[in-house]
Amino acid sequence: MIKMKKFIVALGGNALIRKGQRGTAEEQFSNIRMPIRQIAELSRDYQIVITHGNGPQSGNLLLQQESCDEVPKMPLSIIGAQTQGQIGFMIESTLDEELMRLDLDKEKLFITVLSYTAVSRDDPAFQNPTKPIGPAYEEPQPGFVKTSKGWRRVVPSPKPHKIYQYREIKHLLENNFIVIACGGGGIPVYKEDKLIHGVEAVIDKDLATAKLGTQIGADILLIATDEDRVALNFGKPDEIRFDTLSVADAKKYLKEGQFPPGSMGPKIQACINFLEDGGEKAIITSINNIQDALQGNAGTNFTL
Amino acid sequence: MIKMKKFIVALGGNALIRKGQRGTAEEQFSNIRMPIRQIAELSRDYQIVITHGNGPQSGNLLLQQESCDEVPKMPLSIIGAQTQGQIGFMIESTLDEELMRLDLDKEKLFITVLSYTAVSRDDPAFQNPTKPIGPAYEEPQPGFVKTSKGWRRVVPSPKPHKIYQYREIKHLLENNFIVIACGGGGIPVYKEDKLIHGVEAVIDKDLATAKLGTQIGADILLIATDEDRVALNFGKPDEIRFDTLSVADAKKYLKEGQFPPGSMGPKIQACINFLEDGGEKAIITSINNIQDALQGNAGTNFTL
Repeated sequence: MIKMKKFIVALGGNALIRKGQRGTAEEQFSNIRMPIRQIAELSRDYQIVITHGNGPQSGNLLLQQESCDEVPKMPLSIIGAQTQGQIGFMIESTLDEELMRLDLDKEKLFITVLSYTAVSRDDPAFQNPTKPIGPAYEEPQPGFVKTSKGWRRVVPSPKPHKIYQYREIKHLLENNFIVIACGGGGIPVYKEDKLIHGVEAVIDKDLATAKLGTQIGADILLIATDEDRVALNFGKPDEIRFDTLSVADAKKYLKEGQFPPGSMGPKIQACINFLEDGGEKAIITSINNIQDALQGNAGTNFTL
Repeated sequence: MIKMKKFIVALGGNALIRKGQRGTAEEQFSNIRMPIRQIAELSRDYQIVITHGNGPQSGNLLLQQESCDEVPKMPLSIIGAQTQGQIGFMIESTLDEELMRLDLDKEKLFITVLSYTAVSRDDPAFQNPTKPIGPAYEEPQPGFVKTSKGWRRVVPSPKPHKIYQYREIKHLLENNFIVIACGGGGIPVYKEDKLIHGVEAVIDKDLATAKLGTQIGADILLIATDEDRVALNFGKPDEIRFDTLSVADAKKYLKEGQFPPGSMGPKIQACINFLEDGGEKAIITSINNIQDALQGNAGTNFTL
């Protein structure tokens, strides 16, 4: 038997809820079909880990709990776990259907790994919260920032140090499981004195995916988003789109501020980290082009 | 190496939220410690599957979504998946701590398996919904019944035919994983034309646990609840508590109406099913006495 390559794919928020949608269950199940269909087909040739964002889903749960005083409010760690369950089920049941369609359902196993991610309590992000979460309000409140939607709570976005479940994930991959993991970047925690502490923070899912990829020895990282390729001067007349981008150039453009911190920036940083930490291939492409990009026919391919 | 016995333990609602509590995250983490500490110690000697209820947690999520018109309401299948994520994380992180305490954390793996459970569309339960869920209202509404708390929505509680993830769970058990599965009885679904349909229903978690136990070839089923032993004439002067109870007697008492349908009834039925389907041992005991009951020093032990 030929050893299959390990492929880790990060699905962006648009994989489940498109711009302008409110995010009904029907919309989410319908949207997730296209990436999952591609991934089901790829499972013939690759060991696969699927990671995903959870911004809109956790935002909805936060809004619901803000609207209801009768029920005790849950910390972000629990909200994160709830979204890992929800999105894990949506991906699994769609994957199950697609594997049935391909007659692979008897052969393949799949599983969602609830994931928590180690952060450092000394991370400077804790002194400088930057990630807006939850509902927007018209009036400012303590710890809120003004965004285009209104005033929102901001929480720190610390660096992921490790995904605790990497041993489980490695084992599962090598035993014929398609693995869904690291939802929403993983639940941010630190361990101290043999206790696990959830923290009120959000980890970038692309940086967490790259970290997990390194930990499990993944060969290929693919970040699936809205855009098919990374662009310089995005949206301007002199826009340039890259088929390939060297890590050196990517670092230079990052420093020049070409890639916004809240969107393309961390995706590019994730690709840089993954290749510098020993990964073979890192790609950014759109949700529609996962298969094409793996064959070299779409997306931006990063090179060391 | 001696082959370890397979032990499946169902944790009742009180394992996470006690009577009179609102169910804050702190309360739930604190309550789950005692059963999980016992289970961590038992993991030296048994392959273990942990199942759990989700009544209060899904009730809270339903109440929150009723209170908020801005967010699309999710079907019961998604609510169930959210609670499997939430409770799975609470159990896992507590288990992680207890395994560290016992210096077993390097050796043992653990995982939550999001679970869906096959029901039959022809199940008579769909003609006769009996399970009250979600918030109670003062005024009746269509599809609601009057309960001691007020008017509540009722949904069917169909029989579990199989837990779809049994192959995954079997594999994991045999590969040194402690498995959390079948939360809330599993998400009720049926498969038709290679599609998976969630249904608005709730599966009894004890019946589902017995079914999963049979599917994975578990040796021992233990149902952990409020009471240490099964009683006849419960709460009356002539109350009798059983150390052992034969399946034949249990069936007789069930028929006589000794065990209420909403509480002890399905637990006893689950023990009967498990033994009749080939299980070796079935026990009902309290959350506090899991270890003692396994050693024969507590609980009601069912015999064929």
